[in-house]
Amino acid sequence: MNYLENLEWRYATKRMNGQKVPAEKLDNILKAIQLAPTSLGLQPIKILVVESPEGKAILAKACQQPQVVESSAMLVFCYWDSITDEKIDHYLKNISETRNQEMASLADFRKMITGFSGSKSKEEQHIWAARQAYIALGFGLAAAALEKVDATPMEGFNPQIADEVFGLNEKGLKSVVLMAIGYRDEAKDYLVKAKKVRRSMNELFKRV
Amino acid sequence: MNYLENLEWRYATKRMNGQKVPAEKLDNILKAIQLAPTSLGLQPIKILVVESPEGKAILAKACQQPQVVESSAMLVFCYWDSITDEKIDHYLKNISETRNQEMASLADFRKMITGFSGSKSKEEQHIWAARQAYIALGFGLAAAALEKVDATPMEGFNPQIADEVFGLNEKGLKSVVLMAIGYRDEAKDYLVKAKKVRRSMNELFKRV
Repeated sequence: MNYLENLEWRYATKRMNGQKVPAEKLDNILKAIQLAPTSLGLQPIKILVVESPEGKAILAKACQQPQVVESSAMLVFCYWDSITDEKIDHYLKNISETRNQEMASLADFRKMITGFSGSKSKEEQHIWAARQAYIALGFGLAAAALEKVDATPMEGFNPQIADEVFGLNEKGLKSVVLMAIGYRDEAKDYLVKAKKVRRSMNELFKRV
Repeated sequence: MNYLENLEWRYATKRMNGQKVPAEKLDNILKAIQLAPTSLGLQPIKILVVESPEGKAILAKACQQPQVVESSAMLVFCYWDSITDEKIDHYLKNISETRNQEMASLADFRKMITGFSGSKSKEEQHIWAARQAYIALGFGLAAAALEKVDATPMEGFNPQIADEVFGLNEKGLKSVVLMAIGYRDEAKDYLVKAKKVRRSMNELFKRV
């Protein structure tokens, strides 16, 4: 199957049937999210993978959509509340080890990162970090389609409550968007047979 | 090739060799972007496809990175400055025609959309719309990797200048992120042989 056919096949599944997604497929989707690019390579995000009934019961406090219960897994995309020195150093250490490169050679890159974060207000940092989470969300949704697994991006939840019930504030994280992973309920989902609606190529793109 | 190998193969290409991406491959990448999901299905975005030398010369006023010249095409992702009644009606008409559905049956959905936009300040609308552009960016980057075409997300440009030189203000659009499409310059790009750096699965994900 051509990947565009997979992307055509996917839709924002409103009702799921509770069927479990095989671990290997879920792992592949998570791996795609790991591979998503982020600004400066910083990956200022963390993703909760909520599979257990207990975890889902916690998430249900912040999101009343049926997918929370009916999905196989719910991903909670979070971004960093702040770009700390500790996080930057951890990142540089990872580069150094992965590429077998002296830490000293990364001094200029470190300055670039701290210059970048230092030039932004807390709110601007949040806007920036949240956008990185959305690139990863895009990778996750595309990967799910390639695995022929249904997936739904969900902004309809209360992030303040999610932050509280998952103890994210203490971890320096802020939840920003959810992704339900599972299988469509052919009987209950009114969107199963609905044609996909998109602006035409001519409307969406402008050649310059 | 497994799609995860493609995602592993891709990287933020810093130098491109000027080679043209075949029209069919570019069209497929754009098609993937068209298929990207957005909140409420509204697609509050528009993408400039800058291929001509003239267009690139204009973009160069807002972005001094070498990819502008060396790429095959530069995408300029823009989001709507505001969610107007006209745009909502246009969307509902598209749903009505695509799904052969009476406009009257979409009255509740229209209320949901206007309730959503009415509850948000201009700034909140911008934050929301920009995030939708980033989902589409994720789809575009993933599709490019599947086409074995290099692609680089680029936040390092001046959006105010881009808005001005492309006349986006009058069109109710705001530029937010660029994507270069082309082929890596094996000789000039110092990152060509660098190993990909990512946080480990255990660090990036937390099972709940």
